[in-house]
Amino acid sequence: MMTPKEYIESLTRLKLSVHMFGKRLENIVEDPVLRPSLNAVAATYSLAQNKDCEGLMTATSHITGKKINRFNHIHQSTDDLVKKSKMGRMLGAHTGCCFQRCVGMDALNALSITTYNTDKKHGTEYNRRFLKFLEYVQENDLVCDGAMTDPKGDRSLPPHKQKDPDLYLRVIDEKKEGIIVRGAKVHQTGAVNSHEIIVMPTISMREEDRDYAVAFSIPSDSSGITYIIGRQSCDTRKMEGGMMDQGNLFFGGHEALVIFDDVFVPRERVFLLGEFEFAGELVEKFASYHRQSYACKAGVGDVLIGASQTIAEYNGTEKASHIKDKIIEMNHLNETLYCGCIACASEGHKEPCGTYMVNTLLANVHKQNVTRFPYEIARLAQDIAGGLMVTLPSEKDYKSPDTGRWIEKYLKGREGIPTEHRMRILRLIENITLGSAAVGYLTESMHGAGSPQAQRIVISREVNMKEKQKSAKKLCGIREEKT
Amino acid sequence: MMTPKEYIESLTRLKLSVHMFGKRLENIVEDPVLRPSLNAVAATYSLAQNKDCEGLMTATSHITGKKINRFNHIHQSTDDLVKKSKMGRMLGAHTGCCFQRCVGMDALNALSITTYNTDKKHGTEYNRRFLKFLEYVQENDLVCDGAMTDPKGDRSLPPHKQKDPDLYLRVIDEKKEGIIVRGAKVHQTGAVNSHEIIVMPTISMREEDRDYAVAFSIPSDSSGITYIIGRQSCDTRKMEGGMMDQGNLFFGGHEALVIFDDVFVPRERVFLLGEFEFAGELVEKFASYHRQSYACKAGVGDVLIGASQTIAEYNGTEKASHIKDKIIEMNHLNETLYCGCIACASEGHKEPCGTYMVNTLLANVHKQNVTRFPYEIARLAQDIAGGLMVTLPSEKDYKSPDTGRWIEKYLKGREGIPTEHRMRILRLIENITLGSAAVGYLTESMHGAGSPQAQRIVISREVNMKEKQKSAKKLCGIREEKT
Amino acid sequence: MMTPKEYIESLTRLKLSVHMFGKRLENIVEDPVLRPSLNAVAATYSLAQNKDCEGLMTATSHITGKKINRFNHIHQSTDDLVKKSKMGRMLGAHTGCCFQRCVGMDALNALSITTYNTDKKHGTEYNRRFLKFLEYVQENDLVCDGAMTDPKGDRSLPPHKQKDPDLYLRVIDEKKEGIIVRGAKVHQTGAVNSHEIIVMPTISMREEDRDYAVAFSIPSDSSGITYIIGRQSCDTRKMEGGMMDQGNLFFGGHEALVIFDDVFVPRERVFLLGEFEFAGELVEKFASYHRQSYACKAGVGDVLIGASQTIAEYNGTEKASHIKDKIIEMNHLNETLYCGCIACASEGHKEPCGTYMVNTLLANVHKQNVTRFPYEIARLAQDIAGGLMVTLPSEKDYKSPDTGRWIEKYLKGREGIPTEHRMRILRLIENITLGSAAVGYLTESMHGAGSPQAQRIVISREVNMKEKQKSAKKLCGIREEKT
Amino acid sequence: MMTPKEYIESLTRLKLSVHMFGKRLENIVEDPVLRPSLNAVAATYSLAQNKDCEGLMTATSHITGKKINRFNHIHQSTDDLVKKSKMGRMLGAHTGCCFQRCVGMDALNALSITTYNTDKKHGTEYNRRFLKFLEYVQENDLVCDGAMTDPKGDRSLPPHKQKDPDLYLRVIDEKKEGIIVRGAKVHQTGAVNSHEIIVMPTISMREEDRDYAVAFSIPSDSSGITYIIGRQSCDTRKMEGGMMDQGNLFFGGHEALVIFDDVFVPRERVFLLGEFEFAGELVEKFASYHRQSYACKAGVGDVLIGASQTIAEYNGTEKASHIKDKIIEMNHLNETLYCGCIACASEGHKEPCGTYMVNTLLANVHKQNVTRFPYEIARLAQDIAGGLMVTLPSEKDYKSPDTGRWIEKYLKGREGIPTEHRMRILRLIENITLGSAAVGYLTESMHGAGSPQAQRIVISREVNMKEKQKSAKKLCGIREEKT
Repeated sequence: MMTPKEYIESLTRLKLSVHMFGKRLENIVEDPVLRPSLNAVAATYSLAQNKDCEGLMTATSHITGKKINRFNHIHQSTDDLVKKSKMGRMLGAHTGCCFQRCVGMDALNALSITTYNTDKKHGTEYNRRFLKFLEYVQENDLVCDGAMTDPKGDRSLPPHKQKDPDLYLRVIDEKKEGIIVRGAKVHQTGAVNSHEIIVMPTISMREEDRDYAVAFSIPSDSSGITYIIGRQSCDTRKMEGGMMDQGNLFFGGHEALVIFDDVFVPRERVFLLGEFEFAGELVEKFASYHRQSYACKAGVGDVLIGASQTIAEYNGTEKASHIKDKIIEMNHLNETLYCGCIACASEGHKEPCGTYMVNTLLANVHKQNVTRFPYEIARLAQDIAGGLMVTLPSEKDYKSPDTGRWIEKYLKGREGIPTEHRMRILRLIENITLGSAAVGYLTESMHGAGSPQAQRIVISREVNMKEKQKSAKKLCGIREEKT
Repeated sequence: MMTPKEYIESLTRLKLSVHMFGKRLENIVEDPVLRPSLNAVAATYSLAQNKDCEGLMTATSHITGKKINRFNHIHQSTDDLVKKSKMGRMLGAHTGCCFQRCVGMDALNALSITTYNTDKKHGTEYNRRFLKFLEYVQENDLVCDGAMTDPKGDRSLPPHKQKDPDLYLRVIDEKKEGIIVRGAKVHQTGAVNSHEIIVMPTISMREEDRDYAVAFSIPSDSSGITYIIGRQSCDTRKMEGGMMDQGNLFFGGHEALVIFDDVFVPRERVFLLGEFEFAGELVEKFASYHRQSYACKAGVGDVLIGASQTIAEYNGTEKASHIKDKIIEMNHLNETLYCGCIACASEGHKEPCGTYMVNTLLANVHKQNVTRFPYEIARLAQDIAGGLMVTLPSEKDYKSPDTGRWIEKYLKGREGIPTEHRMRILRLIENITLGSAAVGYLTESMHGAGSPQAQRIVISREVNMKEKQKSAKKLCGIREEKT
Repeated sequence: MMTPKEYIESLTRLKLSVHMFGKRLENIVEDPVLRPSLNAVAATYSLAQNKDCEGLMTATSHITGKKINRFNHIHQSTDDLVKKSKMGRMLGAHTGCCFQRCVGMDALNALSITTYNTDKKHGTEYNRRFLKFLEYVQENDLVCDGAMTDPKGDRSLPPHKQKDPDLYLRVIDEKKEGIIVRGAKVHQTGAVNSHEIIVMPTISMREEDRDYAVAFSIPSDSSGITYIIGRQSCDTRKMEGGMMDQGNLFFGGHEALVIFDDVFVPRERVFLLGEFEFAGELVEKFASYHRQSYACKAGVGDVLIGASQTIAEYNGTEKASHIKDKIIEMNHLNETLYCGCIACASEGHKEPCGTYMVNTLLANVHKQNVTRFPYEIARLAQDIAGGLMVTLPSEKDYKSPDTGRWIEKYLKGREGIPTEHRMRILRLIENITLGSAAVGYLTESMHGAGSPQAQRIVISREVNMKEKQKSAKKLCGIREEKT
Repeated sequence: MMTPKEYIESLTRLKLSVHMFGKRLENIVEDPVLRPSLNAVAATYSLAQNKDCEGLMTATSHITGKKINRFNHIHQSTDDLVKKSKMGRMLGAHTGCCFQRCVGMDALNALSITTYNTDKKHGTEYNRRFLKFLEYVQENDLVCDGAMTDPKGDRSLPPHKQKDPDLYLRVIDEKKEGIIVRGAKVHQTGAVNSHEIIVMPTISMREEDRDYAVAFSIPSDSSGITYIIGRQSCDTRKMEGGMMDQGNLFFGGHEALVIFDDVFVPRERVFLLGEFEFAGELVEKFASYHRQSYACKAGVGDVLIGASQTIAEYNGTEKASHIKDKIIEMNHLNETLYCGCIACASEGHKEPCGTYMVNTLLANVHKQNVTRFPYEIARLAQDIAGGLMVTLPSEKDYKSPDTGRWIEKYLKGREGIPTEHRMRILRLIENITLGSAAVGYLTESMHGAGSPQAQRIVISREVNMKEKQKSAKKLCGIREEKT
């Protein structure tokens, strides 16, 4: 397994074409806007080498029997699934943001199932290719980006009906050695921190969408790939030189629009090609795993709760009953989230290929709560923090000889607490509830791994309504029914 | 293990003093108001002998190695804890009400821990006595009532400060062969269906409350015990002769005020006597187990969801998008409850005595949600049902030659569905949301196993706030702090 | 204006055909189940003669210039509309239940508008007939039932497509002197306390439904009308002899299914006949007025909040911060309801006929909140009350020599408060949250004046979305658009 | 009345000491970060001269009888109060942000009452001074900042107990011509756009805090006043040169920490000096008026709803039932807010001095809802918008020849809608839900005019609990009581 240092060095060797603020980046690894995001991924390497965390952070490869990073592991038991949830929460608390590496883990696990099932039906050899790829990833301790979401254009139309056929990524040519693909993937969390990009379709497909039914993996610096970094709230604070106003000094995230401009994919790296009826299964398996992954938000919630308790102490309000009650409510909601990601894991099952799969219904229920509770936790955090969170002068004013003494004097809270500490914790709360981490804690909680309505559709499909109706009818004496 | 028939016969042999509507009951087992409650307990016997359910309903005694009803089992693994949650949901769905037997199970498990711990400190022999009692219960497949809640009088005062010292149950005399106790226990769910009453203290205690720190078990028909049955919404519909207006034709619950008028308890049945510092532990262990037990409400929720789907179909509204969405929301909330009772079980741990204990934090989080979601599920059920649920004429009017044909004609819903079916399912929804089952599904969800504030206090105590604050401070650069 | 005594006497002169529990009632006025409902209507008479209330309870007829009961008044100003809201809240607090008379008031006001508008288009004389009828009602101080809701059968089909054409009330024959109608009206709140029944269509109609587009008023004891009383939760407690277990000693409500078995309506009493395009307007005007009328629930909320505060004091918990906070939340929600009914009134406008109409959007917003907040207020009331609310023994047990002393002793709360008082206030909370008043406070809040979805459709239609989009586009610089 | 141009010119004549990002600003009026805030205030001038708006925007001075801007008007009727609410909503919709001028209006109205009442008791001449000042403000059409919130230090301590006595603004010296004050005011919305600063105490006070019981007004550029601008989320986007990424192209807000470094206040401008018992009244009157002022959030809500509907149309999702339902919910919540600000105004009353005061209870209820609903509306807006809102590349990337064509191609939504329009509307939603307008729409909604708990305390105090308890006790037959 790589050390964080080795990981960062490995990235410097990639030749990525990355654009941000209208320019192509020369040095991605040292870019101040992107570096916190890299740091967050690096934490998945450093904690794997931390004695206290390795139980969660590492696993034993079912291929090689070697110790590997859990992010590259195929779940072999419900215990593995539970550990995945716990790892997510731990890393969320450690970084206070999205650490970006679960999407690759979820893509690997989903592919381990669907390549097997596709082969069963079609006599293809996707699973062999996949396992070979997996071993390569495990052996080299690589970061994989899982790329699912297409731009989609007019959302009321399927891929082949879009005016521009490229609005869903598709195969435009097939050769002996491989295929050529064109399209784009949006919302690619942590894309430029990855060694590999695993591409998957974004929706269930029919015969007419056959060209869109494609899955593969390629190195992130393959020819024809361009990354355009998305803006985040308060992104440029990271470029200002100071540190306080960032809120989170170390970690962050990034999102990219990834362009595939006629990119060649060698055949050995293709994991689905035209077997359209498996597109839906791949989406659903990935989505269920990834909905579980929102375990991390309970970890970010831990940070926000800790920050809220701290500012209450700094303000001298921590003993007010309404403050205590709000802290309890935050914890209650946060632990309810935790229950969801534990339950869908402990209720997991073994797929025919041997991979353990989460309980689909509960994973969707969990994610549905993630689209709600972080918003309420954030609202309560703002309530506890007080208005100063959004009226606080800048770090530069605090450090200015003209105004620093006023800020020092007047923004002092409880006796014994440095004004600077109060400012720092307020900036962290701002970061998570309005700033760049709010992108991950709030909006990504809403839309990541599928928007709320996607989960509702699955919930509707997965519950056994007939059984419930049978119970009800029996109890009230409805005996025979011709439905 | 007893058959349901044997169980009912065993009850006829008890000489209970039961009062209801101002009279002493002659035949408790055949009383129309109480019988549905008895039927619900009997279902815990019948399902234990049902091949499809025995995996959940039975367990292997850790004392005798024999197959026993799970309600009398001491949890030997997290798997046992998870099965307990699943059994609760299954029985809730089977009966559509409170089946009353979990309180005894939770009392047994809590005592298995605290008798052991008390002995460790005080050199007492409570655990030996307890295990002997447990074996008796298991061998005879008995129902135990767990009696915790004292009347409490002025809730702002501790036991010894109450003007009437009996407002908490207490030891008034101690003899060689045993003790004499006086007091009462309120909210005794299913009390008159029990063979044994296990009495426990209701709050943490100090030295001054030593006389109140007492736990024991006695046969339910011991001399000096009087049961006064509490009223439930719509209780007398069960006496009307018809069946439709009851909603639930088979099952129900009851609550009793149990008076202990100087009752003798043999020493062998005493499990705590004056070791006041263990009163709190007993309360907390019992409460955590019992908060898990609210798994059953997910089962009652299943019935209510099934009934709501059915009435939508009968009304011809089941395809309206808002109806479908409300059904999804009901399921989402119900499955969120399920996540809680699964997570607190799968995250359980082994106590020194060997008994497995649920995760206290998550059990409390689970119960807290139970104080909220059933109310919203019930509200949505009423939304879907339509106003007819509360304006429907009586069964007698339906069966009357004068008015029956009008009701038949005008309360017809969708073609092909008998009017009577529509009426029956509406009565079931009424039963669960306003009627006698609402006592269990709503108010008991609120107050059973402790009122909402009790859970909030535990949540507050159980979360590791220091750790959360540490994460937050680290991320925003608050290095040294003298708190 | 009649005294309450005169009102009750006037009812004894009616020859109504009323059925309940399978029997035709001989003496409706003295029937123990129905009497509380009659008392509630009688309160609208008594308070009209109470000096403190007459400002709200009475108005000056715009026809005769005489002082009349406001329930028979046509609103002449926004001040009238605001007073209507305040009267509703006052009466809700006075009776703790539905006082049943607003539906007639709302029907009168809606007809004052639509008869005028129909005449304008069709040259009919409905408004003249209506005003003559109105004067008769005002002069004799009558109670009108407003009958709108048809049984509807399969809700996915319009009237003329129902298999049984009578599932919406319709004209089956037309003669020189009048028309013959057949059908039924469901959910008729307070029907048997009325002198007149004003019948209106229940939905918008098209040409094909012409026979269903009919509105009229007839005496409640007209030949061919049958009333079948609906059951309510805990209805039979009123027949038990005691008083405590009823909760509300004086007031209640009732609902009836009203059958129109080929009833003759004289032409002078017909207010719409075939002008199908005005059915929708009549429904909408009535619905908006009636949605405002849910002002009364703020009054019932006052009672429930008062009861909750009282039981907290009796339990000795009223100073606990969480109890105080819950009481505040109950008040906050209740006053938010009040804001809605005041705002839709003060933002009312004058219709061409001179009648003042509430703001349709805000009336619907108000009612939408009424479908939610009372449920939460009720939940909080149950939280504060404690479990005893549903485990309390019966009044007969309390008064029994065998068990009364135990109840007296053990259900005592705070020193100085009689046990009986504690029991009484708990029964009142039970009455409003689970018992017969819950029918009005909860389920009727949900479905009365239209189910929640009906309000959502109106909200969607009434907001000026184009204007909002214009503001948004302007601010972000979207200049020209070809939609 | 001034034109917007005159207003801006008037500001250029002020000699304010304003600091931001560590520097003293040379040209405040042209500063790119502050200019949008100035534009928002200028809109209160331009709309006052717009024929369509002048009914709301202007009023007739009760002193001079001249037409004045409503922001400088003393309310003379409930109609004035209602117009104030409507003006707020209109301006919120016009600017999409906080337009900053209501705090001065509310300070003027509050002082009109308390100066009168203080004079009545103490024989002082504050009201005369105030009216003279008011006339000056009206005649010159000035903007007043209302400065209430002190830094407060340790919030568990009163002013005189703070270790640093300056943490509440106080009189440090009194001379014949005037007084010298020291301290600071935080959260001063729009401070540097004001001509006058009206200072008021921030809490009720006792004898010991006499030096803190002071109210006055002084020109904003008085000697000794320093403004330090607070940071807002995404503030520096305004400095980037482009326009799209700002979201709102024209309007914004700002907050300042205002330092009073031994500032001299002439006696004629002092409106309270040591009459500590009136500090509380001034706070409460101001707070109630200001809580009403949150009418503006319904206007910002209009913008956000309009933007959400627009992005749904651009995405091609506007006909999905769940999208329509979410839009309805947003409107429902927004109109519920509107009901609150209308009701507290229409239920206003006349104070002894002649000024009309809002209904205190309902104003607090209104503001309490404002601390909740905008957060839910914002959450729903993010749901509808889709994840692109937080992953969208920058304007610079869109305009770059390297990446612009990719963005143009791949971020296209529905056919016929320019990609740029889609980007613009998403940026507006980002602006209001995470960006600089979120400071006003969310956090200011939480804390402005008092944090949620402040309103709860007032609600608790203002409801007539005794009356509610009387109703409840009467209904359940609790006759005599010795409380």
